Amino acid sequence: MSAGKLIGVGVGPGDPELMTLKAVRALAEADVIAHFAKAGNTSHARAIAAQHLRPGITELPLLYPVTTELPACSSGYRKALRDFYDDAAATLTAHLEAGRVVAVICEGDPLFYGSYMHVHTRLAARFPVEIVAGVTGMSGCWSAAGMPIAQGDDVFTVLPATLPEDELARRLTDADAAVVMKVGRHLPKLRRALKTSGRLARAIYVERGTMADAKMIPLSAKPDDDAPYFAVVLVPGWEERP
Amino acid sequence: MSAGKLIGVGVGPGDPELMTLKAVRALAEADVIAHFAKAGNTSHARAIAAQHLRPGITELPLLYPVTTELPACSSGYRKALRDFYDDAAATLTAHLEAGRVVAVICEGDPLFYGSYMHVHTRLAARFPVEIVAGVTGMSGCWSAAGMPIAQGDDVFTVLPATLPEDELARRLTDADAAVVMKVGRHLPKLRRALKTSGRLARAIYVERGTMADAKMIPLSAKPDDDAPYFAVVLVPGWEERP
Repeated sequence: MSAGKLIGVGVGPGDPELMTLKAVRALAEADVIAHFAKAGNTSHARAIAAQHLRPGITELPLLYPVTTELPACSSGYRKALRDFYDDAAATLTAHLEAGRVVAVICEGDPLFYGSYMHVHTRLAARFPVEIVAGVTGMSGCWSAAGMPIAQGDDVFTVLPATLPEDELARRLTDADAAVVMKVGRHLPKLRRALKTSGRLARAIYVERGTMADAKMIPLSAKPDDDAPYFAVVLVPGWEERP
Repeated sequence: MSAGKLIGVGVGPGDPELMTLKAVRALAEADVIAHFAKAGNTSHARAIAAQHLRPGITELPLLYPVTTELPACSSGYRKALRDFYDDAAATLTAHLEAGRVVAVICEGDPLFYGSYMHVHTRLAARFPVEIVAGVTGMSGCWSAAGMPIAQGDDVFTVLPATLPEDELARRLTDADAAVVMKVGRHLPKLRRALKTSGRLARAIYVERGTMADAKMIPLSAKPDDDAPYFAVVLVPGWEERP
């Protein structure tokens, strides 16, 4: 019996039409489709790819443990996650050793801030692996906003809003263009950092970038009260336009 | 007569299968297909999309002027480029005013370091515009290399190799993960900056990332002699893996 194959399949930022031809083919050819979700939730990646799953295909939900009782930076939380990824890799291994092609579907691009990376690093040395690159969530956002983000010799940076305020301000000042992720409850702090760095006037706030109910407004017009965790802020660069 | 529509269509990093379903549909529905290329060269974007162009479709090559006699930073060069983009926008305007749907096809993602941005900014206020996000060249590269690039709260940065050596070293030290573009003749300088920043050991050199003849090797195994302009160097982040 031949060994199976692991495929990390990016399904793009949300609009099912932003799946690649290669992703659609990978789903058509796979024996097993795996997807990450929080326990009690459905997988976003599965919702995006739904119409391309074969009827009766074997599905393997990989459900994050609910760990609300542990702070995210604690060693207990880290151990719970590590155990979860170990278990997920073991579950995939059983299918791979049985010679099956297992596609792990991922929102956006599999190797850019994706959960898939955790099973990839555990399995890539043991089994044949293929990656199907996807359109990232941030590309989906600036495309939906019609906002050129970076050009020429611009320095472009992706920052998590979890950074301390002075770090955010320093890094925003240092970059020509930026995308700030994981905005959520960090919005008031991020707004102050954007003001300090002189970037507030051109910052765009985006929620659900490529969904039908997307929300895109200048950050200056967005109140601080209710940003979801997955909201992003775009800071376009490209000051010298020929 | 109704106004036309301008569509910036990302066709991805090179592998025609990394085109999105939306890009394929946009090409099927467009009246005119425009593409940028250097005078005397064929368009890379057109080569990627070739099998999806309708027979007999109107094509509009937008050919960059050959300006080898002018230094790239000179005002004469900048004026030649500005005139070229003005002329390209005027050419597209004639089709848009005639009510046609014009798709400008772009390698990678249209609003991320793409030539399309120059006509977008000239036309977006005057005509309906749509953007079809694409898989970026850098996603294509790290996917082909099977190299997880950034995770969790990593700060990720895109740098042009044209920066001075101390600037490169400072920014590489300051980021968790980086992609360095436009490597070409800057490779020896970039190598020194990577060494200064302690990132040389994990740097990966990539040429023609998603083409059949892709070349991916540790930068430490790549001599300084012959890097093409479009080669990139990947510096993966993600030090603390759960």
